[in-house]
Amino acid sequence: MKDNKFQREALQVKEAQAKIIKYANPLESEDVSLDECCGRYLAEKVIAPHPFPAFNRSSMDGYAIIAGDTRNCVNGQVVWLEIVDNIPCGAVPAVDITPGTAARIMTGAQVPVGADAVVMLEVTERREEEGKTYVGIRKKLEANSNITPQGFELSQGDLVLPTGRLISAGDIAVLAAFGLHTVKVYRRPKVAIFATGTELLEVHEPLEPGKIRNSNSPMLEALVKETGGVSVMLGAIVDDLELARSKVQMALETYDFVITTGGVSVGDYDIMGDLVREQSGNMLFNKVTMRPGSVTTAAVRGGKLLLALSGNPGACFVGFQLFARPVISLMQSASKPFLPEWSATLGTDYKRVNNFTRFVRARLEIKDGSLFAYPALIDESSVTVTIKDSDCLIVVPPEEKGLSAGDKVTVIKLPG
Amino acid sequence: MKDNKFQREALQVKEAQAKIIKYANPLESEDVSLDECCGRYLAEKVIAPHPFPAFNRSSMDGYAIIAGDTRNCVNGQVVWLEIVDNIPCGAVPAVDITPGTAARIMTGAQVPVGADAVVMLEVTERREEEGKTYVGIRKKLEANSNITPQGFELSQGDLVLPTGRLISAGDIAVLAAFGLHTVKVYRRPKVAIFATGTELLEVHEPLEPGKIRNSNSPMLEALVKETGGVSVMLGAIVDDLELARSKVQMALETYDFVITTGGVSVGDYDIMGDLVREQSGNMLFNKVTMRPGSVTTAAVRGGKLLLALSGNPGACFVGFQLFARPVISLMQSASKPFLPEWSATLGTDYKRVNNFTRFVRARLEIKDGSLFAYPALIDESSVTVTIKDSDCLIVVPPEEKGLSAGDKVTVIKLPG
Repeated sequence: MKDNKFQREALQVKEAQAKIIKYANPLESEDVSLDECCGRYLAEKVIAPHPFPAFNRSSMDGYAIIAGDTRNCVNGQVVWLEIVDNIPCGAVPAVDITPGTAARIMTGAQVPVGADAVVMLEVTERREEEGKTYVGIRKKLEANSNITPQGFELSQGDLVLPTGRLISAGDIAVLAAFGLHTVKVYRRPKVAIFATGTELLEVHEPLEPGKIRNSNSPMLEALVKETGGVSVMLGAIVDDLELARSKVQMALETYDFVITTGGVSVGDYDIMGDLVREQSGNMLFNKVTMRPGSVTTAAVRGGKLLLALSGNPGACFVGFQLFARPVISLMQSASKPFLPEWSATLGTDYKRVNNFTRFVRARLEIKDGSLFAYPALIDESSVTVTIKDSDCLIVVPPEEKGLSAGDKVTVIKLPG
Repeated sequence: MKDNKFQREALQVKEAQAKIIKYANPLESEDVSLDECCGRYLAEKVIAPHPFPAFNRSSMDGYAIIAGDTRNCVNGQVVWLEIVDNIPCGAVPAVDITPGTAARIMTGAQVPVGADAVVMLEVTERREEEGKTYVGIRKKLEANSNITPQGFELSQGDLVLPTGRLISAGDIAVLAAFGLHTVKVYRRPKVAIFATGTELLEVHEPLEPGKIRNSNSPMLEALVKETGGVSVMLGAIVDDLELARSKVQMALETYDFVITTGGVSVGDYDIMGDLVREQSGNMLFNKVTMRPGSVTTAAVRGGKLLLALSGNPGACFVGFQLFARPVISLMQSASKPFLPEWSATLGTDYKRVNNFTRFVRARLEIKDGSLFAYPALIDESSVTVTIKDSDCLIVVPPEEKGLSAGDKVTVIKLPG
């Protein structure tokens, strides 16, 4: 049941995304040590096992006192309190504080029972008398001064981090504070990458007339890693349908997700298109109303996803960001699988028109608190060099008249 | 020659940054393979070794022709050209195109000599006559239609990527296209991380009264990695000046950069402060007019930098971003060693005032093309939880009156 190559049913990008992510199921979880979890996705929610801080903590170097003892500190009057303890960080106070007494205390140390304020060292004086030491205070203190109370940041049982959270350095600080030295995260998806095309040379090969080096596979390899996946480079598929079918089938059985680049347009050698069409029941889409990358094709076989991206570098890049990134992210149960969409002002006219939505490589600038997006000077689908200089994609809806500088646009923020 | 602990000469943040980066010299370079260079910094500029594309390339599946042959295609008139060649991708054209002839050509294939346009397959027809095959064209074509000329993206000798460039997935595509399978990058700095303080428990240890788990070291480990460095975890320094001195000395001799956390304020056990003060000739600064982290201290010994960050988690984080990040980046010769500063509008009032510049953890929102920054509800220097929820730091200058919603502010964009 072969479709006509030229008669493809075109889906909107959001429709195509909805179709493909249905099959992007979270993988199993695994335990990793705290020092390996940055950039991974949490596979369990983290609940505070104890209040944080766990005790009333001094936020100053100084003296723990009863604030009421300073009530007479007016008009330069000094109150003298007997120093009955010395509490370095990490120590347990030996003595409770009672009226008329104080304890020397360090920043971060546990405030002793009885004390309800800490007076900072710099505003105190000290004297000795009959073998006892006293601290002199000249300033009236409010209760709770310079104390961070137990549970100030989190109470026991509070949600600290939700499932599907991308773990950052700041998260690691909190996990460490709660003693979580191993962390349950989703396994990284193993993503197989194929290129197709007899025109492709390996990167290390010398240039030959008519040929180009395979630049999409190394780019996809880096993009897969950036998205948290493990790239498995499976080389090039030559233009032999039988061989292509068995290679792709093997990859689908062995890996979590298969991405190919090239071989999906309407030419005679569009092997990936042929391969998907021959089992059209499994095809999710083979045309998307987008530029570049309208030929982007996806299929599902035995529960595994096959994404066939265009061989044009620009289209391959955009197709990865729109379709592969959410799939790889959702396999790790990411709470935010799509790239963020921001609003911005168009910095210069953009007059290329199309009946498909265009994803234009562009650069963001921030001026006086406002975002401006500048389209790349050349953004043909086949162009490679502007990928590296872009930090967003401007979403240009199908338009008769193009867009003018000053128009409001939606941009998709690229990572990094 | 001990300074008085309380009498420190305070530097502005920019002054302190200028002092420390003077000693952040680029490390040696090393060759890595293309698949390992993403996120590294280029140690040589990349010059295009050949034009890109290397040949006139068809951007369509169709027929390579001489545009002039279609000059009579008006009012539905069809011109018939003899098909003399078939050029798949990667092939070298066998025949030059002369008036009256055409070659079947694939997207991405080399345009034959003589042809100056490609007509797309979908608008052509085909017929056979006396053993010859002809293509019928109904539409007048302009010269250069559907051809991407040699050197369209880059000419031979063009600068492709400058030294100090952080290599992205898009850069990898270009490096691959030019056959650069190994890439010269700066070595990753080895950054030793110490914590100080007898109050610290290891992450795996059960909580004890008065003690806290060391959360700064794992956070710094993740931040160093994020900045391209290699973290070397050297545990905790106990409060013994002699031991601390020898440990820090060993680390300075062995690694490229030493970061400590804790032990820099004015308490009795502020061992890092003591250690730096005892050789004050080497001290770069021990007070910065910033909150949090005013006690941030830096010294240089034997040409190596020692950065002593505050033990307060918020201050440790901010100190890393302002001082350690540029150092680690510059050791890799980064062209942009500092985090980007953006302008934004303050989303809510911020009324905490201080005579020092405050770096307030905050969250960015984009509404209708404008950036709004929302300060974290609690941003005490000792607070850990708001680090993870912040994507920027609002720079609050020393102010008498605080800031109001709607005020323009500068924010430092955090990575990720």
